[in-house]
Amino acid sequence: HHTTPHERSDESARASRRANMAASSSLPAAVPALLLALLLAAFAPELAAAASSRRPTHQPPPFPAGLAPLHQRRAASSSGRYAASAAAATDNGTAKPFTAHYFQQELDHFTFTPNASRLFSHKYLLNDTFWRRKPAAGPLFVYTGNEGDIEWFTTNTGFMFDIAPEFGALLVFIEHRFYGESKPFGNDSYKSADTLGYLTSTQALADFAVLITSLKQNLSAVDAPVVVFGGSYGGMLASWFRLKYPHVAMGALASSAPILQFDDITPWSSFYDAVSQDFKSESLNCFSVIKAVWDVLDYRGSNDSGLLELSKTFRACKTVRFPSSLSNWLWTAFTYTAMVDYPTPANFMMNLPAYPVKEMCKIIDSFPVGADVVEKAFTAASLYYNYTGDQKCFEMEGGDDPHGLSGWGWQACTEMVMPMTVSNESMFPPSGFSYEEKSEGCFASYEVRPRMNWITTEYGGHKIDKVLKRFGSNIIFSNGMRDPWSRGGVLKNISSSIIALVTEKGKHEVAENMQGPKYSELTNA
Amino acid sequence: HHTTPHERSDESARASRRANMAASSSLPAAVPALLLALLLAAFAPELAAAASSRRPTHQPPPFPAGLAPLHQRRAASSSGRYAASAAAATDNGTAKPFTAHYFQQELDHFTFTPNASRLFSHKYLLNDTFWRRKPAAGPLFVYTGNEGDIEWFTTNTGFMFDIAPEFGALLVFIEHRFYGESKPFGNDSYKSADTLGYLTSTQALADFAVLITSLKQNLSAVDAPVVVFGGSYGGMLASWFRLKYPHVAMGALASSAPILQFDDITPWSSFYDAVSQDFKSESLNCFSVIKAVWDVLDYRGSNDSGLLELSKTFRACKTVRFPSSLSNWLWTAFTYTAMVDYPTPANFMMNLPAYPVKEMCKIIDSFPVGADVVEKAFTAASLYYNYTGDQKCFEMEGGDDPHGLSGWGWQACTEMVMPMTVSNESMFPPSGFSYEEKSEGCFASYEVRPRMNWITTEYGGHKIDKVLKRFGSNIIFSNGMRDPWSRGGVLKNISSSIIALVTEKGKHEVAENMQGPKYSELTNA
Repeated sequence: HHTTPHERSDESARASRRANMAASSSLPAAVPALLLALLLAAFAPELAAAASSRRPTHQPPPFPAGLAPLHQRRAASSSGRYAASAAAATDNGTAKPFTAHYFQQELDHFTFTPNASRLFSHKYLLNDTFWRRKPAAGPLFVYTGNEGDIEWFTTNTGFMFDIAPEFGALLVFIEHRFYGESKPFGNDSYKSADTLGYLTSTQALADFAVLITSLKQNLSAVDAPVVVFGGSYGGMLASWFRLKYPHVAMGALASSAPILQFDDITPWSSFYDAVSQDFKSESLNCFSVIKAVWDVLDYRGSNDSGLLELSKTFRACKTVRFPSSLSNWLWTAFTYTAMVDYPTPANFMMNLPAYPVKEMCKIIDSFPVGADVVEKAFTAASLYYNYTGDQKCFEMEGGDDPHGLSGWGWQACTEMVMPMTVSNESMFPPSGFSYEEKSEGCFASYEVRPRMNWITTEYGGHKIDKVLKRFGSNIIFSNGMRDPWSRGGVLKNISSSIIALVTEKGKHEVAENMQGPKYSELTNA
Repeated sequence: HHTTPHERSDESARASRRANMAASSSLPAAVPALLLALLLAAFAPELAAAASSRRPTHQPPPFPAGLAPLHQRRAASSSGRYAASAAAATDNGTAKPFTAHYFQQELDHFTFTPNASRLFSHKYLLNDTFWRRKPAAGPLFVYTGNEGDIEWFTTNTGFMFDIAPEFGALLVFIEHRFYGESKPFGNDSYKSADTLGYLTSTQALADFAVLITSLKQNLSAVDAPVVVFGGSYGGMLASWFRLKYPHVAMGALASSAPILQFDDITPWSSFYDAVSQDFKSESLNCFSVIKAVWDVLDYRGSNDSGLLELSKTFRACKTVRFPSSLSNWLWTAFTYTAMVDYPTPANFMMNLPAYPVKEMCKIIDSFPVGADVVEKAFTAASLYYNYTGDQKCFEMEGGDDPHGLSGWGWQACTEMVMPMTVSNESMFPPSGFSYEEKSEGCFASYEVRPRMNWITTEYGGHKIDKVLKRFGSNIIFSNGMRDPWSRGGVLKNISSSIIALVTEKGKHEVAENMQGPKYSELTNA
């Protein structure tokens, strides 16, 4: 009963047309899409070791991470004037609301080998518009940069701009080493383990400590309190920074930080179960259609004529060579949309309407029952890739980072081992996780082997409530429960000053909640 | 009015004879003396850059560190049966109260360069005599090794043995990388910065974390609490370990840990002022004699016949070439004696009577007023070098580590920059401290430059009371006020569970104070 594109109904045609309509170019999307590509390459190190895959026709889950600082500013938000103007200014390429600076940072803080003292230019951004200098210097609000260009995170982090006037704060955004302009070996930075070896979270945290300490001295503000902010991987860094450098930062706001997504602390299937639950809660039909599409894709893509037909259905710019490319394309759309399921229109990863999961399911549910599941899934996924309609065709294979040698790919193959599986109950094809396969894949890609339990050895995580109940203070973990990463986050208060802000359905934003007494308490600590 | 050895009185002759009497050999003293030599070489990096010295005839102060875990066990102590037997067994070379083990440790925890995953055998000792396994596994008491052979620290750390039965604890003593048998590159470990570069405190702490975590898994005791113990540099490590790895250790006892001896937190002259005060409080004459001796040595040692004469006075095995060798020899004796001024006979650094400072001053005061200050000072110093009387002559120059490439020397030239000066009010020749000279001296010795403010950036120290008041818990800092290192220690309670135990005059031991309720509180945390 497989339907072809030519058999589809008026409704599905309408939906499909919408995905196609405003398409004007196949230009690579700007920073977000690029980052997305990097992330995707990163989370599929087994791509380079396909032979070890148990389901050769399906890639393993793309394991996305490092996404979505929750305080991203939507144009529709009422309180985002500073950030909105910042974003607008950046988009226009005119005056920016921050100034760029470069700190001479040492390559290796933890050895004194001859290479260690090599210096690199470490980028950071300042905005002192709201900084109070008298009677005492106001606080420094420091964004601990993620795996990407710091300017991108800055323009998408409105919350810090929103609260800066109230606190008379200096805004500081520090780039993460090996990203953006902060590449210690320039264009050679990603060449091999000789250079990439210095890309670790521990070095990044030490970078932040050294830079902040020096900056405060240079600004004659040694006594000014510092609060660190971060989202996703940046949120992990923010919370770890408060734990490791309490003498540098007196508090941290860690947003969507899956610091418990390591070892066996969080069930390995929880991420994709959560994504699936987001879709299931909108519509059981939607969930079932997506669950059904993978086998159909495999079946139809098993021969060249099938692949050609599928390439047309998917508006591929070039005929795809592997059905797994199509699966991955869909997979990415559903997974990332669940991660950015904001209640308002947003342009963080991609341009999306409010409640994009609901919108995707509406598209699927609007097809007649007998319509082709592939067509349904493609049209829903197009909402993610082409909401604005400016994509004439889609690049399904290759892309900007053909070798997969992205920074996050390296990090996921060294420190950031977050085991994930796909259970039979999810809407994705089931898959397992094997440390051995992971290790082999990483060795094939980067000639490096991950240290599987290093993150919990260095930063903790097991029994975190017990460990931090009488240790540490002033950390806010915020999570939106529709974000699948929330399953690996801190969701319960640990102590009176290590607290969890959990927002339910659709409230994937914490800014509004953060301007009350709790935040004031933090800064009076 | 300079007196010569031949003019000395009966009393001084008697005192001198005592120093000489039981002398039987010039064999190098065992471990303690060797360690002392290493330390001395370490703390005088400017030896290699004598040209920059403002007083060419005097070496800069030897800046000793890494000394004297306070809980060293004296044979005379009543509660030291386990440790005493341990020490005795070791001395006899027969059965030891602990078993040696080796863990395959990674060279560099903080990068993933190709060298980083190189493994080395990391030594640790276990004693499970007192370990309770049921109903739940008893705690691990872990000694965080200092700059030396772990067996030496183990046999000198009776306190852990004393309290182990009460707590049903497993005793673990972990060697510090690059010391004892835990040299990552074997005999080549100290060859150059390529190898020594991996000798840092941060790597050592990560070693401890990885080893403890793995050990608990292998022992099926993942839930057993861990308390870390350490003295001097090992005490610094213990307190830092609790701060950086609260998920691994739930408490720390840091003995004589001068964690505030960095940057300008503690006045630079306080160490030598404290040494001087120890002597002054015994006798003003004693203080004045020592204060006077340095210029006399310079004057008499300024020509060859004077050096020959002085060499005889000092019982030098070989005629010394520099008067500064004699100054350093005296300097070491007075400084180290102040550090180990225990109220009972001890054999930690050297064999010494109870209250050795008082004994030294008794020797000086027993000379007639007109006696030679050099003779007085030498005889007093002999108490330190030759209390047992087994030294026929003294090695004043050269020694076991002619290149000065000791582990602590490297550490003092990289991370452990503890600025010290000698004030005019002290009994030592005044001297200053210059970061530039320090840096040049280190570069000349090791081709490395210190990171002057790294320790406080990485571990804190400035305003420690404010920083830790609402952060961290379960650290006991113990200090004896006669120990000159106490000036750089934490001497006041910071919070209800970060406490300072300060013992006054002569009470340079905390064991007795630690078996009360405070310690119980710690382990119930």
